[in-house]
Amino acid sequence: MKKLMQCVPNFSEGRDKETIEKIVESFRNKDKVKLLDYSFDTDHNRLVVTAVGEPHELKNAVIEAIGKAIELIDMTTHKGQHPRMGAVDVVPFIPIKNVTMEEAIAVSKEVAQQVAEKYGLPVFLYEKSASATHRENLSMVRKGEFEGMTEKMKQADWQPDFGPARPHPTAGCVAIGARMPLVAYNVNIGTNKLEIANAIAKNLRHMGGGLRYCKAMGVELKEREMVQVSMNLTDFTRTAIYRAHELVRIEANRYGVPIVGAEIVGLVPMQALTDTVEYYLGLENFSVNQVLETNLME
Amino acid sequence: MKKLMQCVPNFSEGRDKETIEKIVESFRNKDKVKLLDYSFDTDHNRLVVTAVGEPHELKNAVIEAIGKAIELIDMTTHKGQHPRMGAVDVVPFIPIKNVTMEEAIAVSKEVAQQVAEKYGLPVFLYEKSASATHRENLSMVRKGEFEGMTEKMKQADWQPDFGPARPHPTAGCVAIGARMPLVAYNVNIGTNKLEIANAIAKNLRHMGGGLRYCKAMGVELKEREMVQVSMNLTDFTRTAIYRAHELVRIEANRYGVPIVGAEIVGLVPMQALTDTVEYYLGLENFSVNQVLETNLME
Repeated sequence: MKKLMQCVPNFSEGRDKETIEKIVESFRNKDKVKLLDYSFDTDHNRLVVTAVGEPHELKNAVIEAIGKAIELIDMTTHKGQHPRMGAVDVVPFIPIKNVTMEEAIAVSKEVAQQVAEKYGLPVFLYEKSASATHRENLSMVRKGEFEGMTEKMKQADWQPDFGPARPHPTAGCVAIGARMPLVAYNVNIGTNKLEIANAIAKNLRHMGGGLRYCKAMGVELKEREMVQVSMNLTDFTRTAIYRAHELVRIEANRYGVPIVGAEIVGLVPMQALTDTVEYYLGLENFSVNQVLETNLME
Repeated sequence: MKKLMQCVPNFSEGRDKETIEKIVESFRNKDKVKLLDYSFDTDHNRLVVTAVGEPHELKNAVIEAIGKAIELIDMTTHKGQHPRMGAVDVVPFIPIKNVTMEEAIAVSKEVAQQVAEKYGLPVFLYEKSASATHRENLSMVRKGEFEGMTEKMKQADWQPDFGPARPHPTAGCVAIGARMPLVAYNVNIGTNKLEIANAIAKNLRHMGGGLRYCKAMGVELKEREMVQVSMNLTDFTRTAIYRAHELVRIEANRYGVPIVGAEIVGLVPMQALTDTVEYYLGLENFSVNQVLETNLME
């Protein structure tokens, strides 16, 4: 059974095409690694790469890409709208197929140790790899950003898991860890009242007493004269798409407004879709191996 | 873009393991051909092989397998519960990925011509490849079975499309053609009254005024004390799973009985499942390319 892991490293360069290509190059023409996508933009000044591969080969490609980013990106002159603390800002490893979360955590720690030693880069383990609860959430780790990390790392609570106790002079710090695949799921509501979307979102999200693996916020779709409950499902194996969807419907009912559409943004694992089919059709004994395409992937 | 076609040839041998292995061998260790499944049983005395591959390579593997079956199977002594007219009974080609129905029809005709010339086997084109309406339906083509084909082929209406106008002495005749992937979909109904399942099935199927690409019959599930509407969806791109499902629900309503479960039997193309998700969630602008696994198949 082929093992497949995904990695979605974020780099702090969205403008210089030459640098971007050099970083992305680490994921091209590699045996057992596939570059699925890369996108960058000027405003955020950020590059997001999506690659999958056999865990060991993927690990080596990621280490190579991190090396190039450290060499080519200078954070002392970096400006952009997206919060960031390093040339390589965050490196999540995601189990996809025949890989456990434990294996993804192990790979993330190997990468952390190697880039710390090889490049003198301080690494914070985050998400499922975090060494303490207060370091699980990326936004907590990154708080202070590149410019504030020197001060922050003087605190006992914010010593890195690997590498020196001060930021790399030009490359800053990096967060590396393992997490579940994230499903970005939005439901459109037939009203132009943003407060309704906000109220529904509040009841949906974990923080508001809602679903354990759901983050949610209200968004206005001005041109379409409707609003949206915009969600991130951070573990679709436990908080399924259909459950979030039906709960939005139930909450919308109290305002007498209907669901008028929905969207999945970006990539979604097949299992998240088959779970949805199983629910709505009431399928018994269905297995992802019954999907014809699954049998073609080996 | 890699082209993928499926073939599900049926052979009249379900007992002699040695013969079965020799036939199946044609689909093993072939470049660009993958054996997905093969199953056989003593009662039906029949072997069903499921293989996918690049159309040209798949075609060659199928021609090889047909040759072996003609060599090894003697229909003059064949007995089994399943209707059959030849050592190779039926050979459907199914477009899967980046392949049009027209291409599948072309491949089926190439195979038909080549096995007729090479092995002296009479071939009837059926389904989408049929040369006349009365030859589209396999059960019409096969009527009379091996023992009756000599007489049947004396009729002007039943001349083969390729090969001699009489059955091969030991291998009989074969039907070769192209068709859409078939989805076997069953819905369980919370009653033990078979007549209710039969009445629902009658209203669902094309023949009874129901859905264009739906065959349906009522089945009793004695041990579970329920009944089932058992369906074959012969073109899921036009008669979607969800539409059949919801129509069963609507028909069941009139008897005051609920749907209590459902099952997909065997393989199902991913598109049939994503269509279902799109319907129930009301997804906008969803593409099968958003399924992570799709990107891993190239």
